Amino acid sequence: MSNELKDVRLSVIDERIKNVKNVIAVSSGKGGVGKSLVASALSLSLARRGYRVGLFDLDLTSPSTHIILDVGERSRPIEDKGIIPPKIHGISYMSITYYSGDRPTPLRGPDFSNALIELMAITRWGDLDFLILDMPPGISDATLDIIRLIKRSKFLIVTTPSKLALETVKKLIKLLSYLHVKIIGIVENMKLRESDFVKLNANKLGVKYLGGIDFDEDLEDALGDVEKFSKTEFFRRVEEIAGELLRTLAFGA
Amino acid sequence: MSNELKDVRLSVIDERIKNVKNVIAVSSGKGGVGKSLVASALSLSLARRGYRVGLFDLDLTSPSTHIILDVGERSRPIEDKGIIPPKIHGISYMSITYYSGDRPTPLRGPDFSNALIELMAITRWGDLDFLILDMPPGISDATLDIIRLIKRSKFLIVTTPSKLALETVKKLIKLLSYLHVKIIGIVENMKLRESDFVKLNANKLGVKYLGGIDFDEDLEDALGDVEKFSKTEFFRRVEEIAGELLRTLAFGA
Repeated sequence: MSNELKDVRLSVIDERIKNVKNVIAVSSGKGGVGKSLVASALSLSLARRGYRVGLFDLDLTSPSTHIILDVGERSRPIEDKGIIPPKIHGISYMSITYYSGDRPTPLRGPDFSNALIELMAITRWGDLDFLILDMPPGISDATLDIIRLIKRSKFLIVTTPSKLALETVKKLIKLLSYLHVKIIGIVENMKLRESDFVKLNANKLGVKYLGGIDFDEDLEDALGDVEKFSKTEFFRRVEEIAGELLRTLAFGA
Repeated sequence: MSNELKDVRLSVIDERIKNVKNVIAVSSGKGGVGKSLVASALSLSLARRGYRVGLFDLDLTSPSTHIILDVGERSRPIEDKGIIPPKIHGISYMSITYYSGDRPTPLRGPDFSNALIELMAITRWGDLDFLILDMPPGISDATLDIIRLIKRSKFLIVTTPSKLALETVKKLIKLLSYLHVKIIGIVENMKLRESDFVKLNANKLGVKYLGGIDFDEDLEDALGDVEKFSKTEFFRRVEEIAGELLRTLAFGA
């Protein structure tokens, strides 16, 4: 691809999200902390409050939201001067799985950026209150690309109470601060016991602690069943965190 | 870097691991499944059986083994016609954290490959029975690079019973099979209840099920304390899996 063509697509991306009021990048230092679950529950929760919500699965190497939301074969994006995301459970939804299916997507750096830019450039989100991005884990090419391509993204960071997860979250926050990226706050997932460990670390890092979610054994059985998923304790806590998020956005982080 | 220089380094990598009998790449489709914990416990466990073991943390964007093994400041690699890894708890140990410290390492594709090749090219492992690679999660540039650079790597795949983890493991196995990479087997971590779900899927994929490890609530408190770590139920199970691994290597996967 020539640089000229690339530039055209970049300006197209701005155009595509022109009428999106808030872009929330749900991110984590480490995989497996429940980022996709939080992004899915947050999207559903905001949609149920009456907001117009889009969910964009950008975890290209390991997409999960299509399983959580049981997207299956029942919907496809519509091609019309770009791609219009289908509505899933009241959410405008887009994922690379519409195009890759079950095939592995071992994209190398430049191909990865290219696929990402292409997906962002073709998707017509229309008017939205929230576009939730399910980010790839860690500080990857995709993270850096999205920061570069969607300058308005505000980061919501998911971690677990584990030292191992928190250690990588610290690095992510350092990088985001260095790049002057707005961080809305930290969500602590999979809490096994009462502990202030993450909260204290959030304070130390100067990042808002949006709330903690207890480890929920029943969550696994609810994956792919949105009715069941929205009745879990996990979902109830994300609903509260959505409230906290709305307050933070309204009154400043 | 010129291609010529790159080629020189590639042949150096072969030379560096010439006297390593087995290269085991501990991998996962998804992050946060306990890959680094399994790699650390496996390394310790094989060393205690009297094998000469090296552990190479190649999870460059989110390294964890230095925390698990409490590597801290007490050891440094020695420079001598390359880098000689220090001995940690009886293991020859190498990690990018010796050079990056707590700084985030947001390496983009080509830089990432470059850092990886550099680390592999300078490290002198000497005579080893096992070199355990703690791989980056998923199907990333690093995964593809290591497959290309260390053709002798045999993959040990870690998953959890979660549909979300298994879905990405399936993709990883498809890719490895396509690339004719040897897969030793699957380890199931963080089991919450008795279930044959992963075992049945392993059979279906034609991959050996090496064993399951129950979710261990006490593990978090043992991170960074190797004495405590090696007394956990998690560690005891990895010791059994190490036995299974030795049998598999001896009699063929």
